[in-house]
Order: sequence, then C-alpha cells, then structure tokens
Amino acid sequence: MLKLFYAPNTCALASHIALEEAGAEFDIARVDFRSNEQRSPGYLALNPKGRVPALVTEKGILTETPAILVFVAQRFPEARLAPVDEPFAFAKVQAFNSYLCSTLHVAHAHRMRGYRWADDPAAIAEMQRKAPETVGACFELIEREMLAGPWVMGETYTISDPYLFTLAQWMEADGVDPARFPKVEDHRRRTAERPAVRRALAAESN
Amino acid sequence: MLKLFYAPNTCALASHIALEEAGAEFDIARVDFRSNEQRSPGYLALNPKGRVPALVTEKGILTETPAILVFVAQRFPEARLAPVDEPFAFAKVQAFNSYLCSTLHVAHAHRMRGYRWADDPAAIAEMQRKAPETVGACFELIEREMLAGPWVMGETYTISDPYLFTLAQWMEADGVDPARFPKVEDHRRRTAERPAVRRALAAESN
Repeated sequence: MLKLFYAPNTCALASHIALEEAGAEFDIARVDFRSNEQRSPGYLALNPKGRVPALVTEKGILTETPAILVFVAQRFPEARLAPVDEPFAFAKVQAFNSYLCSTLHVAHAHRMRGYRWADDPAAIAEMQRKAPETVGACFELIEREMLAGPWVMGETYTISDPYLFTLAQWMEADGVDPARFPKVEDHRRRTAERPAVRRALAAESN
Repeated sequence: MLKLFYAPNTCALASHIALEEAGAEFDIARVDFRSNEQRSPGYLALNPKGRVPALVTEKGILTETPAILVFVAQRFPEARLAPVDEPFAFAKVQAFNSYLCSTLHVAHAHRMRGYRWADDPAAIAEMQRKAPETVGACFELIEREMLAGPWVMGETYTISDPYLFTLAQWMEADGVDPARFPKVEDHRRRTAERPAVRRALAAESN
C-alpha cells in the first residue's frame, strides 16, 4: 500500500490531494516538524533530503512533488490527472509544476527558511522583507500567463490544480493580497470545494 | 522545426544536449544576456518569464528544463532518453531533475543572482558567501544517494545525465572543489566525451 509522509501546511498537500483525486488506497504519516523529526535518523533513512513529501511505494520511495504527482497520475490512469500520452500537453503540465517548485515555492521559502541560503540574521531578515514582492510577482505571472481557466490547463482538472491550490494557500501568510489575483482566487475557491480536497485537508487537520 | 533559445553557460545546455542525443532536427538562437535581451519586449513576448531555455515547437512554446527534457524524450522515443512508460522508473528520473531545478540550481543562483530575493547589497553578498556551502551540500547528496553510476539512473543514459552534467559544469565557479565528488567528476568526464555533448558545446561556443 502507498504511504505518504507529510507535514501540515507544506507542499505535501498537493500529493495528498492527488492521491485522493485518484481514488488511491493509501496511508498517511505525519512528520513532526516542531520536534524536527524530518532531521531524525529514522526519517533521514527513509528520505535523506529531510523534507516532505515522501511517498513509499512497492518499488521504493519517491520524493519531489512534481515527480510524485506524475507518478500518481500514471499509476491511476482512470482518474485522468495528466495527459501523459500527449507530449506537448504533458509538457505544459510539467512546465507549470516545475515553475511552482523552482520559482514560486522557492520565493515563498525565503520568508521562513532564509537560513538555507544565508547565516547572517540581517540577510535572513532582508530576504523575509522581500518575499511578498517575489511571491507576488510569481502570482502575477500565473494570473496573466499561466492559468488558462477554469482549471490551470483549461477545461480539464490535472495534477497542476492541487499543486497551485497548495501554494496559493500560503499567499496571505506571505503578505500577498489575494484580491490582486482574481483568477487564482476563483481557482482556489473552486478547488477547495472538491470532495478530494476536503478529505485531504480534514485528514491533515486531525 | 524545433528552435531552442539558449544562452551560453546556462541550464539551457541540458535541453540542447538532449536534442542532440535524440537526433532531432533543430535550430538554436542565442539570447544575449550581456545586453539583457532576455528582458526585451521581443523575447518576453516569446517567453514572459524572461529566462532560458525556451523551446519553440509546432504546437507552441515550452519552458522549464525538466519539462523540455521529457518532451524531447517523448518526441523522439527511439532515442530512449526516459522510461516514460514505467511509472516508478520515470518518477525517479523526474525526482532527480526536480531536485536539480528546485534545489541545486537555486543554491547556485544565490551566488550570481541574489538580487532575486534581496535588495540590500550586504544580504546579496552574504548569499554569495554561503553559496559554496549550499551547492556543496547538494553535490554531497547527489554523490552519496542519487548518482547510481555509471549514469545517474544506473546502466542507462537518460535525460538526467545532461542535466547533471550541465549543473556540474558550474562547480568550480561556485567555489566547490570537484575532488570531493569522485562519482560526479567521473560522470562529468564521461558525459563530456559523448559526441552529442561535444556538438552542443561547440555550437554554443560559436
């Protein structure tokens, strides 16, 4: 059985929602970030990166949200969560997800985890100060160029949708006014209403 | 015909090599970073992100290295550059590439492009100071956990190989001693000898 290691309010929610959307049978296991469990020997043996998500499969352990999302889509093809057999359409999904992991999520990480890239407290504070601007610029690009509507790729809900939803959940805490991005806000509202999303959020709040 | 927009010494080299490995017919177009051409209205109309690579295809324009690499693998299946039909094996390729774009490339970017995440020159200098440590930590993880050998995924050369080769080319400039990572160094040496890699490097140095 699949088992997803997650922590609440992290990007692991995207994989969690995708598993729910796919109708997968899976367990979840919470990693306690407050006690720094992600750096414990036990968890590092499972995922040497010391991060979430990690998905335990019959063949081994997978990490990295874009990889896990496509794995779920391929493993449960009847859920039609990614156009894996249409190279251009699939590449658009992948490009969107890649932008989220390498640019939007990274911009966000400079608010809370600037210590990854600097030791000096003043530099960390400066990154934190600028985070609303960089996160806002990412959402501007998404709003203007990347979110086709009603779903990210257009008429069809894909693995890009739970990923956008997950990162858009952090907007207020990042100091970005969601009212600037009506398409992203509408997407967030509609995604939140999906039964799979409600189930994932409820499970993570237990 | 496919057309790759690139700049020398950027991650666009990975896509360039993959196109060569695939035996694709394609043109290349250099974007002049010295004159900031990537922010020109003409280029932004093509790629609103103002970055490279961008791949012009018959169906539209693709961005983001991990997406372009898989597109090339799917478009030229006879080159067998990714196990797209084996979900777990494909997810391992994707996870590797996702780590490169969201963690290693980002660590590297803090050396030269800290202005993305801070305005204060002292903070930018502090990021630059720490970059060798964070880039080195990424290569430690790759050396210890991720590079199966002889190729990234083991016996078979995949799209993960030109991507690792491309980012490993920056190690010395990032202040990281390649002697610490014998497997990565051996991988770099063997990859550099491939005819496709030689052709791509020669074309970019013209």
